[in-house]
Amino acid sequence: MRIDAALLGRRLDELYAIGAEPGGGTYRPVYGDAWATACDLVSGWMREAGLAVRRDAVGNIWGRVEATGGGKAVVTGSHIDTVRNGGRLDGALGIIAGLAALEALIEARGKPKRPLELLVVCEEEGSRFATNFWGSRATIGAIGPSEADTVTDAEGVTLARAMQQRGLDPGKIPSAARDDLGTFVELHIEQGSVLETERVPIAVVTTIAGAVHLEIVVTGRPDHAGTTPMDLRRDALAGAAAMIQAVQSIAAALGRPAVATVGKLRVEPDQINVVPGRVTFTVDLRHADLGGRRALEERIRSLCGTIASERGLGIEIRTLHERPPVPMDGAVRKMLEQAATETGATPAALVSGAGHDAQVLATRCPVGMLFVPSIGGRSHCPEEATDPAHLALGTQVLARALELLAY
Amino acid sequence: MRIDAALLGRRLDELYAIGAEPGGGTYRPVYGDAWATACDLVSGWMREAGLAVRRDAVGNIWGRVEATGGGKAVVTGSHIDTVRNGGRLDGALGIIAGLAALEALIEARGKPKRPLELLVVCEEEGSRFATNFWGSRATIGAIGPSEADTVTDAEGVTLARAMQQRGLDPGKIPSAARDDLGTFVELHIEQGSVLETERVPIAVVTTIAGAVHLEIVVTGRPDHAGTTPMDLRRDALAGAAAMIQAVQSIAAALGRPAVATVGKLRVEPDQINVVPGRVTFTVDLRHADLGGRRALEERIRSLCGTIASERGLGIEIRTLHERPPVPMDGAVRKMLEQAATETGATPAALVSGAGHDAQVLATRCPVGMLFVPSIGGRSHCPEEATDPAHLALGTQVLARALELLAY
Repeated sequence: MRIDAALLGRRLDELYAIGAEPGGGTYRPVYGDAWATACDLVSGWMREAGLAVRRDAVGNIWGRVEATGGGKAVVTGSHIDTVRNGGRLDGALGIIAGLAALEALIEARGKPKRPLELLVVCEEEGSRFATNFWGSRATIGAIGPSEADTVTDAEGVTLARAMQQRGLDPGKIPSAARDDLGTFVELHIEQGSVLETERVPIAVVTTIAGAVHLEIVVTGRPDHAGTTPMDLRRDALAGAAAMIQAVQSIAAALGRPAVATVGKLRVEPDQINVVPGRVTFTVDLRHADLGGRRALEERIRSLCGTIASERGLGIEIRTLHERPPVPMDGAVRKMLEQAATETGATPAALVSGAGHDAQVLATRCPVGMLFVPSIGGRSHCPEEATDPAHLALGTQVLARALELLAY
Repeated sequence: MRIDAALLGRRLDELYAIGAEPGGGTYRPVYGDAWATACDLVSGWMREAGLAVRRDAVGNIWGRVEATGGGKAVVTGSHIDTVRNGGRLDGALGIIAGLAALEALIEARGKPKRPLELLVVCEEEGSRFATNFWGSRATIGAIGPSEADTVTDAEGVTLARAMQQRGLDPGKIPSAARDDLGTFVELHIEQGSVLETERVPIAVVTTIAGAVHLEIVVTGRPDHAGTTPMDLRRDALAGAAAMIQAVQSIAAALGRPAVATVGKLRVEPDQINVVPGRVTFTVDLRHADLGGRRALEERIRSLCGTIASERGLGIEIRTLHERPPVPMDGAVRKMLEQAATETGATPAALVSGAGHDAQVLATRCPVGMLFVPSIGGRSHCPEEATDPAHLALGTQVLARALELLAY
């Protein structure tokens, strides 16, 4: 099969230009103008490739290659929306490489035995509405009945209103659900630097890590920074600093794939000459298996509690969000490894620390994912990039995997 | 000498009610309505006490008891402005206790040998304009020629305009300078909890600590919290947390009166699922002597630099503000100790971690300060309080000190 690496690059550039932001990067929030233009562009390419293109009730685009036989569909694809100042590859690669793979397969092999589909997911990032995986959740029938009417963007526009502005009927959301998905495979960038560091050009994902988001509030006593001796203070920030150190040390000691991040922090009263009385910070914990993640959370809760009590500080820990790890299907993993090996690459086995549509679709069908390296591990920013040779390799492996699945 | 403790309390209450805020506490920013009302109230009391009252070019109020002999004036007093949500005693006590002391002295001893004056400083807190010690700086002739025209409040009103709205002529600021100050003594609350902890009812201040304000910017690399293993991160907040710990440990190890506080901190991008790329925080360092403070600063700079380089982080340290420590006059300290002892109390010797007008007036005349305990160490808040017995004792000691100086 022939993958046209130059065409792949040109299409990525063309899509990246839609929603380009003055500060660099692109922004294509779901149901916005840039999003609509991007959907039209990709639909056009899909039609040119000979796919039967349709849009479902939430705006996911499906392009189908009918099969000689029947059966459930072999699906590949990714999401077309982006974060603010997003990069050229996150989501876009899975769509454009999927299209290139289908084009190559049709050219080389003609009609498949099983239906082959390209899925352009309308929304995954949650960057406009606080609702991740909107597109894939619609596909598995997991949208709550009042969700479209209650979730609003920063301007107060409901999801339902945003859909209507694009000619989509929120009343029809249930019709987007499918029960005829056979397998879903997705090519994505790693968004981290493990592959680059280990000089491996491709990985088969083993599990999408579970995540817990905690909010920790540490209360001390606000005091005058000049008149309160060190030994009479109850400094909430000094306590929080010890906790941040502990969070980092615990995750580092557990080793990969455990990660723990304190990303947000607010100090009160936040004045140069007042000992902090209250600090609120978040902890993002991820691990490939539930036991590991629970152990991580348990140790962090326990050590933070100890630090607070040693320092006479109050502490409250609240779970903001929790999602279990999703293992990829064993047979699909093996098949993806085979496809990589046959393409001449020895794939790494990698846990995905980030969430992906595959974790949602896994409730309906076997799923698998391929990762190609991210230069410098950068993602969700204009610097997001991958060596063109790795983009071509990933597409080639994806095409071979789809061939193994559908022909 | 008889100090009327009940009158002292009533006057403190009456002054505290002017500028009362809905959220608790009081707010009397310089040249505001509450400030003007408070000045009128205190001027009235001063006139009733038989003082010759005048207002200088910046609005400081001076109340004078003429002497049988001549010579330079013995002055006591404090500031009438407050911080936002300020307490009942900060500044107010020094004014009202000073007035009570003068009343008691006039009643008991009549005309002094040297002129006695009560000074109501118009501004010390810097809560409306970013210019601390405005009143005492005018008294020593240290207001810059363009300062009144260039410094503005949050609404953009210049100091000059605010003065004019109170009938004060900014062109006359230089006339507020005095070169006939003999001694300045001030009674103030401690604003910390050392006296309460050590169960001592009064202290003679040895030194007003010097302060340095540093701004430290730590730069790492913003990374995806899910996809970046712990060992491949350059986490600016984890580095800053280690530095905050170091700042606290260094000051605690040096012991009293060294203090170091990280009061403000900002994380970028401040997102729950992004490894912090940049953290900016402040350090407020204080010590009673310049050598001690420099040693403290030196160790903090060095250890923060080491932490940054160990973690591959960038670091920039900038001095925002620096003021040297101001020792109180040795003879005045001895005299204040004598006054306390004769009043029946054994005074502690204490470093003032907070700044006071005495540090400005010290450039013109010998100065000294008395502290009474703050309950729970609280200050700059509605909870600011002192045992009435300690208020009366402090006033008694102040009166005896003024007697020793002026009679």
